[in-house]
Amino acid sequence: MPEPAEPPEPRLAAWEARTDLALTVLAVAFLAAYAWQVLGTGASPGLRTALEVVLWVVWAVFAAEYLTRLWLAEHKLRFVGRHLFDLLAVALPMVRQLRALRLITVFKVLNRRLGVNFRGRIGVYVAGTTALVVLCAALAVLDAERSSPEASITSFGEALWWTMTTISTVGYGDLYPVTTEGRLVAVSLMVGGIALLGVVTGVIASWFVEKIAGAEQSIEDTTRTEVDSLRAEIRELRELLTRERGAPR
Amino acid sequence: MPEPAEPPEPRLAAWEARTDLALTVLAVAFLAAYAWQVLGTGASPGLRTALEVVLWVVWAVFAAEYLTRLWLAEHKLRFVGRHLFDLLAVALPMVRQLRALRLITVFKVLNRRLGVNFRGRIGVYVAGTTALVVLCAALAVLDAERSSPEASITSFGEALWWTMTTISTVGYGDLYPVTTEGRLVAVSLMVGGIALLGVVTGVIASWFVEKIAGAEQSIEDTTRTEVDSLRAEIRELRELLTRERGAPR
Amino acid sequence: MPEPAEPPEPRLAAWEARTDLALTVLAVAFLAAYAWQVLGTGASPGLRTALEVVLWVVWAVFAAEYLTRLWLAEHKLRFVGRHLFDLLAVALPMVRQLRALRLITVFKVLNRRLGVNFRGRIGVYVAGTTALVVLCAALAVLDAERSSPEASITSFGEALWWTMTTISTVGYGDLYPVTTEGRLVAVSLMVGGIALLGVVTGVIASWFVEKIAGAEQSIEDTTRTEVDSLRAEIRELRELLTRERGAPR
Amino acid sequence: MPEPAEPPEPRLAAWEARTDLALTVLAVAFLAAYAWQVLGTGASPGLRTALEVVLWVVWAVFAAEYLTRLWLAEHKLRFVGRHLFDLLAVALPMVRQLRALRLITVFKVLNRRLGVNFRGRIGVYVAGTTALVVLCAALAVLDAERSSPEASITSFGEALWWTMTTISTVGYGDLYPVTTEGRLVAVSLMVGGIALLGVVTGVIASWFVEKIAGAEQSIEDTTRTEVDSLRAEIRELRELLTRERGAPR
Repeated sequence: MPEPAEPPEPRLAAWEARTDLALTVLAVAFLAAYAWQVLGTGASPGLRTALEVVLWVVWAVFAAEYLTRLWLAEHKLRFVGRHLFDLLAVALPMVRQLRALRLITVFKVLNRRLGVNFRGRIGVYVAGTTALVVLCAALAVLDAERSSPEASITSFGEALWWTMTTISTVGYGDLYPVTTEGRLVAVSLMVGGIALLGVVTGVIASWFVEKIAGAEQSIEDTTRTEVDSLRAEIRELRELLTRERGAPR
Repeated sequence: MPEPAEPPEPRLAAWEARTDLALTVLAVAFLAAYAWQVLGTGASPGLRTALEVVLWVVWAVFAAEYLTRLWLAEHKLRFVGRHLFDLLAVALPMVRQLRALRLITVFKVLNRRLGVNFRGRIGVYVAGTTALVVLCAALAVLDAERSSPEASITSFGEALWWTMTTISTVGYGDLYPVTTEGRLVAVSLMVGGIALLGVVTGVIASWFVEKIAGAEQSIEDTTRTEVDSLRAEIRELRELLTRERGAPR
Repeated sequence: MPEPAEPPEPRLAAWEARTDLALTVLAVAFLAAYAWQVLGTGASPGLRTALEVVLWVVWAVFAAEYLTRLWLAEHKLRFVGRHLFDLLAVALPMVRQLRALRLITVFKVLNRRLGVNFRGRIGVYVAGTTALVVLCAALAVLDAERSSPEASITSFGEALWWTMTTISTVGYGDLYPVTTEGRLVAVSLMVGGIALLGVVTGVIASWFVEKIAGAEQSIEDTTRTEVDSLRAEIRELRELLTRERGAPR
Repeated sequence: MPEPAEPPEPRLAAWEARTDLALTVLAVAFLAAYAWQVLGTGASPGLRTALEVVLWVVWAVFAAEYLTRLWLAEHKLRFVGRHLFDLLAVALPMVRQLRALRLITVFKVLNRRLGVNFRGRIGVYVAGTTALVVLCAALAVLDAERSSPEASITSFGEALWWTMTTISTVGYGDLYPVTTEGRLVAVSLMVGGIALLGVVTGVIASWFVEKIAGAEQSIEDTTRTEVDSLRAEIRELRELLTRERGAPR
């Protein structure tokens, strides 16, 4: 669906190009610290504090980066409208109950990098994105659920298994989130699952359509050959006429 | 799939254009009153009566509007056939057990408005429709279920969570409707979920097909260029001939 | 996917055209008798016997019809290969435990009739087929399950609800078949659900692709117009030449 | 999506052509021995040992075949990258807990053979692959689960039923794997289910697109006819000119 072209934002584009690598490194650091915090339940209080500091510092950098981009954008309102997701990712973790959603920011930054590297090879891109979604969602749901006394998801293995049953829309119901935070993670995952199904189907369908279009293509090629041959005949005709005209009568 | 063109209904179209805004306002009022009634369990009896009056008045207006359109239509039978959904939406709430389905009318009116505004930007339209479906279904299922002693869906939060697990076809089974009315809401939601999956997949697939068609396009452009160049050569040829003919021999 | 053209079977086609209406009537009778038998639990022994006789007579007619077609077919082996489904539908009910699968024959005959009438209007065809699948599956699963002491599907309302949760692939798990026969009905329904999703998505996707192809179409139209204009110029050129040649020099 | 063409591997291709049939026979033998081991719970210890020996010998042959292909490949690294799945299939069974995943190798070999025979008839190919996936998954999950005291999947019939509810993404949750090994089988099956849905939808969607493209096709055919007629006129024109030139003046 072609959208109307938008006025370029040169300052914004330059900033994004410059900060891209640094943000990716920070996002990986955040993901590692978060995973350590969630999975390393036996960590000492000092280490826990250190990890928490890392997480908040990275969050602060992401927030600052968002505000900088907003400041650089020439069309502030349009920037906010086009980057609602970024705004949510920066604003949500401030609510104590939505802390597990901090991973959305990380996912967004890492996914952009994946996109730049593998956009051409759609299979690798889909596999990479899915793996990233599954990892982030499993960590987030475990973090959200395990403090609840009624939780059925209590280990990382169970969290991974639940993530897979949800993203594939199978949903056995042997495990499911019971906290609001965990359910928000699940809803994000369902949206991801539908989009994933859409992309997989879209790729396969377009491949079939392409194969069928192959037959049409050859007909079009024939048309082109015909036009080429027509052209040659007209050229010949002109040469004939030119020679005739130039010849003495 | 091209359908045979239908004779226009000018009187009907004029009426629909004139009443569109008023119906939208009424539908929003209905949705607000309904939500208040369903969620505001601690409301005074007077307020409850007032809300019930609002709901029935809006329903009566919708029923009257349907009858007016039927009266305006030149082809009555075809109108009924093409607007079976409207007939259902007007007739169903009269059955006491199907009162929760009144929201279908509201959904239809609001969705038409969404369509007019965002048909071009398919992403916004899909997101808006989905949000509206989820909101209406959560209210309706809560209204239908909570009077049943066996109900597992007993709060608005649970209703929203159940709605999401159903529309994404995940279906954990931790919550599910047990009343006939609630199950009718669920069936509507499943149909919506399948259509949603279809639209998402369709958009993504057509995007891939478009990208692949890009290559074909350029070949077609080449053909056009060839034809243009052929034309130029023939023009030249004609000029040559004309000049030759006009020239003295 | 174009398949190699097959030699026609004129005798078979004539037979099918002649028996089509009679088979449809028989299939409707079978469905009615079956529904009566399954739902009318309080029927007298005499009526029950009468219904059972109707069911077996119709089955015998279908079996005879299959054998007649096999006898009429010039390529027996190919006929069996192309109509494996018919063979199953005739052979399965002979096994006592698979009696509920008799409805497959009925579905096949009625679906062919639906197809003939509504193939052009894909929406009506999909809706009709889905309604027929849901009705047959609900009757069959109820018939299969209710004799089992562990069955959770024990009324027609529950059977309809279970059918809807299965065909939409939601699968809450509040109800599920426990007998082998009921599970075979469920598997048929799942295959139907996947095909249904495929058709809905396919129709929507092709609609989007068509909309996008609209732009391409107009380019192609331009090409055709160009070729038309080229042709006109060449004709003019020829007339010029002919006149020149005919003119005295 | 066209990928850049790769340099051919003639030695590898020759080897694969030569070993194809032998590998298929071995894979069928493996599947039969595995099924016997899983289903024949009352087998004598001697027979059990014999079956175990067959399984390990076939695995060893597959491992040797992989190493041979690696040795034959001119671009070792690219070979490993392109055949990650083969590497997994050879390496995983060495871990005791992942023995049930040996069936992946068998599936891959048999699927290649199915592909060679039925690639043109997509319906047969999809049906064959699905049947093979369902059989392998049911055997593997039964093998993985039945030693666990909490297992709900304890017979081959239940394993088949669970496989069907999972691959169709219905997921009632009446049965589900509880061991890590069984859950890995389930995850493979979910990926298969999503791909299956994608293929079915893709085939149907491309069929609809093709039907719509039929109309376009006829326009293109018209264009070709026009070009043909243009060509005839130009030829006539040239003959006219040639005759005129050749004629005495």
